Amino acid sequence: MANTLSSGAIYSSRVLIRCSSSERGGQQRSNAAVRVNGATHRATLQVGAALETSINETLAELSAPLLAPATDGRERSRQNIPTEKQAEDPFRQAQIVEGGVRYQQTVVVRSYEVGPDRTATLETLLNLLQETALNHVWMSGLLGDGFGATHGMIKSNLIWVVSRMHVQVDHYPLWGDVLEIDTWVGSSGKNGMRRDWLIRGRGSGNIYVRATSTWVMMNKNTRRLSKMPEEVRGEISPWFSDRHAIHEEATDKIIKLDSNARHVDSGLKPKRSDLDMNQHVNNVKYVRWMLETIPDQFLQHHQLSSIILEYRKECGSSDVVQSICQPDEDSVSPSENVTMVRGPSLLPEFINGHHSLAGALQQWPTKYTHLLQLKAGDGYEEIVRGRTTWKKKL
Amino acid sequence: MANTLSSGAIYSSRVLIRCSSSERGGQQRSNAAVRVNGATHRATLQVGAALETSINETLAELSAPLLAPATDGRERSRQNIPTEKQAEDPFRQAQIVEGGVRYQQTVVVRSYEVGPDRTATLETLLNLLQETALNHVWMSGLLGDGFGATHGMIKSNLIWVVSRMHVQVDHYPLWGDVLEIDTWVGSSGKNGMRRDWLIRGRGSGNIYVRATSTWVMMNKNTRRLSKMPEEVRGEISPWFSDRHAIHEEATDKIIKLDSNARHVDSGLKPKRSDLDMNQHVNNVKYVRWMLETIPDQFLQHHQLSSIILEYRKECGSSDVVQSICQPDEDSVSPSENVTMVRGPSLLPEFINGHHSLAGALQQWPTKYTHLLQLKAGDGYEEIVRGRTTWKKKL
Repeated sequence: MANTLSSGAIYSSRVLIRCSSSERGGQQRSNAAVRVNGATHRATLQVGAALETSINETLAELSAPLLAPATDGRERSRQNIPTEKQAEDPFRQAQIVEGGVRYQQTVVVRSYEVGPDRTATLETLLNLLQETALNHVWMSGLLGDGFGATHGMIKSNLIWVVSRMHVQVDHYPLWGDVLEIDTWVGSSGKNGMRRDWLIRGRGSGNIYVRATSTWVMMNKNTRRLSKMPEEVRGEISPWFSDRHAIHEEATDKIIKLDSNARHVDSGLKPKRSDLDMNQHVNNVKYVRWMLETIPDQFLQHHQLSSIILEYRKECGSSDVVQSICQPDEDSVSPSENVTMVRGPSLLPEFINGHHSLAGALQQWPTKYTHLLQLKAGDGYEEIVRGRTTWKKKL
Repeated sequence: MANTLSSGAIYSSRVLIRCSSSERGGQQRSNAAVRVNGATHRATLQVGAALETSINETLAELSAPLLAPATDGRERSRQNIPTEKQAEDPFRQAQIVEGGVRYQQTVVVRSYEVGPDRTATLETLLNLLQETALNHVWMSGLLGDGFGATHGMIKSNLIWVVSRMHVQVDHYPLWGDVLEIDTWVGSSGKNGMRRDWLIRGRGSGNIYVRATSTWVMMNKNTRRLSKMPEEVRGEISPWFSDRHAIHEEATDKIIKLDSNARHVDSGLKPKRSDLDMNQHVNNVKYVRWMLETIPDQFLQHHQLSSIILEYRKECGSSDVVQSICQPDEDSVSPSENVTMVRGPSLLPEFINGHHSLAGALQQWPTKYTHLLQLKAGDGYEEIVRGRTTWKKKL
């Protein structure tokens, strides 16, 4: 993954994992290709790859920040969040630690944040990642223009846009668990920024969730991706940490599915309650659509252990969405009976009881590839590609 | 509303605002009428009315507690919540105050809990009510059998079931607002219990939300409503407060709509993410279904100021639901132009500017009646009746 720079505190980022284009309205979209370094690029942005070599044309649509400066003072005041830089936030049970590099917040898993199995849902985890990233920005005192924009960014009309998100769930926290969430930023390639998170049990220190995300800069007027100006690099790099929450060996491109895929849900329409502050569909709804396309029978017996999202375009309230998914042919779990025979070994712990069997089954992780796209004219435009990994429920 | 008893601390209740029947599974239902005092009753339960006079037959289906004792020890352990009585809960920022009567918790409105207008959604408010009620029970040390059941209740196989909920939103808190939520219980009629809440701004003390709910006892084996045994009354009444969050003058019965109503959405199906810990549809989904049946045009210009819910039956994962609503003929807001003429007076503040106009418009609150029902054979069975009151958005 991304190369790494020096340690330091964070002073950048905006709300992650949302695609929004508030300044142009949800329904206006252009298909203009992204220009970086004077050339037009059409390839998908890879994590850690230099912007010069690989930019998806539709990434331009990941445009305005979720919390873009409002167009009038009245709208701007519609929040009640601290605007002063601070080291402690008692009400959010948060603090800046490690010499300013890391934001840390304590949260308790609430009764309505868990699913039928009494563990936090993936939606809850995604929400907490968003919340802590934003709170980190507040506590840094950079709440003004652009939500995470530095002075140099504001001067150049630059904003942060998220292009990729990878969440790995080692264990789902239980209802009532007290969690400690850490988040920090780092460098990603020449022009990107990385934001990472760790969710741990308070006290035990057990790791529940690791996550990383990639951010790039966009000119908010031209909607084009931008190199990171030297001035901005100078401003933010002192706050970068070289710690990684997930050590990604290599990041394979997520292939683009088409409607010949195994499972296709069409005609999906956002509800009012699915919209975020910018009237766009929120990230949690994206993930719901993706997962609801997987057959119930599979979901009953499997638990998501990892999700990678590559964002392309925002989805507005009147869009009609198609959710497509396809299991990897070479990753589908064999049935339990078959596993007993095909297991890599027949050690005693393998044949002795439920737990060991489940452990053996986990040697065949099941993967799905996902695509959400919206109807545009006669065709479709990509919203987000996804890749999920699953393990057998115990 | 309910008569009131002595003050005291709380030691009862369970998760409110959910209908569940965990012990018999979501799909098994009987239509047996509820027996109270040896007689069978078929009328709707009224707040504060004695159980002897008015029990809806289907109320029996509001049966098992959300957190009914699990059937095996393994399931029971799938939570990580305090089981010792305590006066302070630092991680939830909660405490028992006022000599043990009142539970108080501080929460911050998070970024993902607000809607497009950057105020907390109704769903968020309902979730916080549920959460604080449950936390109150935890802190009381009564986490054992039945979630809020006293020793006398456990001995008689009694559990609490919620029959009614009334939430009044005076102001929607903003993103970032620090809230103080108070909740306590009191008497409701001879056999019921009331749980009230106040949500206020921390510091300002401004009231955002007032809420009250009604609970009755059910025998968890027979699924029939029960009178409150003297032993149980003796246990819980010392903890009752006579304070009311909402002073309800009279509680009109919510009429039962039929499919001739103005707006009908049929074929609604719960998704996996709509299910709570007992595999039943959660309360927030009920409210979403109700509100999504109201035309978008109305929702764009109005804000919910009050909702009353009367619970009848739980909804399982494979049920097919119909959401019906009907505006009150005599409560529909006239258009702004008409209002200028039809207003009750033409005082200067009435014709001077937007704010005054909006104030005048609020003299015609708009009300909707709601019904959620599920398909059962050739007909339908009621899940919940609702009544919403709306005011013009400023």
